[in-house]
Amino acid sequence: MHASFKSLLTDNARLIEATLDHVLPPTDHNQLAKPMRYAVLNGGKRLRGFLALESARLFGIHDPQSLRIAAAIECLHAYSLVHDDLPCMDDDDLRRGQPTVHVKWGDATAVLVGDALQALAFEILADAQTSTDAHVRLELLSTLAVAAGAKGMVLGQVQDIAAETAGVPLSLGQITELQANKTGALIAWSAVSGAVLARSDTNALLGYARALGLAFQIQDDILDVEGNAATAGKRLNKDAAAGKATFVSLLGLDAAKKQANSLVEQACDMLSAYGDAAAPMRQVARYVVDRDK
Amino acid sequence: MHASFKSLLTDNARLIEATLDHVLPPTDHNQLAKPMRYAVLNGGKRLRGFLALESARLFGIHDPQSLRIAAAIECLHAYSLVHDDLPCMDDDDLRRGQPTVHVKWGDATAVLVGDALQALAFEILADAQTSTDAHVRLELLSTLAVAAGAKGMVLGQVQDIAAETAGVPLSLGQITELQANKTGALIAWSAVSGAVLARSDTNALLGYARALGLAFQIQDDILDVEGNAATAGKRLNKDAAAGKATFVSLLGLDAAKKQANSLVEQACDMLSAYGDAAAPMRQVARYVVDRDK
Repeated sequence: MHASFKSLLTDNARLIEATLDHVLPPTDHNQLAKPMRYAVLNGGKRLRGFLALESARLFGIHDPQSLRIAAAIECLHAYSLVHDDLPCMDDDDLRRGQPTVHVKWGDATAVLVGDALQALAFEILADAQTSTDAHVRLELLSTLAVAAGAKGMVLGQVQDIAAETAGVPLSLGQITELQANKTGALIAWSAVSGAVLARSDTNALLGYARALGLAFQIQDDILDVEGNAATAGKRLNKDAAAGKATFVSLLGLDAAKKQANSLVEQACDMLSAYGDAAAPMRQVARYVVDRDK
Repeated sequence: MHASFKSLLTDNARLIEATLDHVLPPTDHNQLAKPMRYAVLNGGKRLRGFLALESARLFGIHDPQSLRIAAAIECLHAYSLVHDDLPCMDDDDLRRGQPTVHVKWGDATAVLVGDALQALAFEILADAQTSTDAHVRLELLSTLAVAAGAKGMVLGQVQDIAAETAGVPLSLGQITELQANKTGALIAWSAVSGAVLARSDTNALLGYARALGLAFQIQDDILDVEGNAATAGKRLNKDAAAGKATFVSLLGLDAAKKQANSLVEQACDMLSAYGDAAAPMRQVARYVVDRDK
């Protein structure tokens, strides 16, 4: 990873976390504040927030607006992780090396923390501080509701559960569709948000995000096999242990790596119209398949 | 219950359910559609939808807009019930005499169905069909996000859980605050929504809704003691069995009934400026404390 990109990643994450600190309820506010802050301010990579910030910068849009968008998508992503980690879902005790919300506060609080974080994401976007243009806010709100709900992320999670219980491994086409819903929809929303803020055409960024989202998931499958549990801060080899079909089990490790790299090139090609201004978005695409956690 | 009010209640519920049928995914759409429809289309009283519809009618606003608002709040309410019924929350097997979502489809699906229904509520409100006025849609969205989230309904649920584990019964003031959050916030949002649609002053409706919400909860506590489990379609006497403080345990049954009736009068008094047009909202306030389930 190039040193300048590494510091951009850190700088952006710091800006996003400062915004999150501001939009989340203060620690002593009520019983929900502490677990909500814990769920969100846990040292994540802030990939979705990074995409929101950098896609807005492509259009010369200043950070105060896009930082609120980044904060909203990170709250929504955090809610999905809290619910995903529940005993009745993936049953994960660790997230980034720390006990998950339900381990610390119990299952009921974890359900409610997730619920509150979803509502907060919409609350942030509806506020005039996000954009003075009401139509922009509504576009962000309605596309996020679709990306997060029964046609997007939640559908992908249900497809994932169905695949586990079906006993028949998914095909490559089915896994691609599942992942496009489960992780792709929010990644796409983030990468496109800058163009929505600028009321500009979203097609190039959508093409970029689709390739990036798939590359991201292939790399996740690669790390599940090749990764280091201590570095990852979570259990690995879960999919293989569960006999689940993954991009690695279907393509083989080498072909999966080639496919991920080819998708990164495709993603970068989509940004040609933006020239050098899109360098951070090209670097983050490269980072997605080079990361070790 | 007056015959004409009874048929208005039924007619409104039918209109709301036709709208819900339209905004929910069709049964064969995907794995989420069936449990989502089951969770929402379960013969509820549609009290919140009724308030949305009738408050809009006060301002001469036609049903197509307010029916979408009614559908949104009923989706949001249904999500809260699905999560509330989970084994890690209230652990209820029956809801309106039918098996709860997690009993039929498992806990993981129930978590996801609730998550998807919350997103759907925001998706419905963000759509231009709800109001052609972007500012009205944003006002509905941001107030719903606040009413549903960590300052409203979810906070009330967390306060409820905290009260159960604390071992010290709540005071009257604490229960009043808890219920104002847990059920009052969505009832208030519904009753005020007509004034928001009309861009009119919301104060009178807010006063009405606050009194109504409290009366509703006192009646719930009365029914928990006096009700018939078969009529209610759910377990009763849960609070007494759990040693929880309720309006009935704190005030006594007679004083609780008097208080509920006095709140209904207060609620109706708030509507004086609307004259006869507000008759359905007065009747529904009376119904809230006269209902037997």
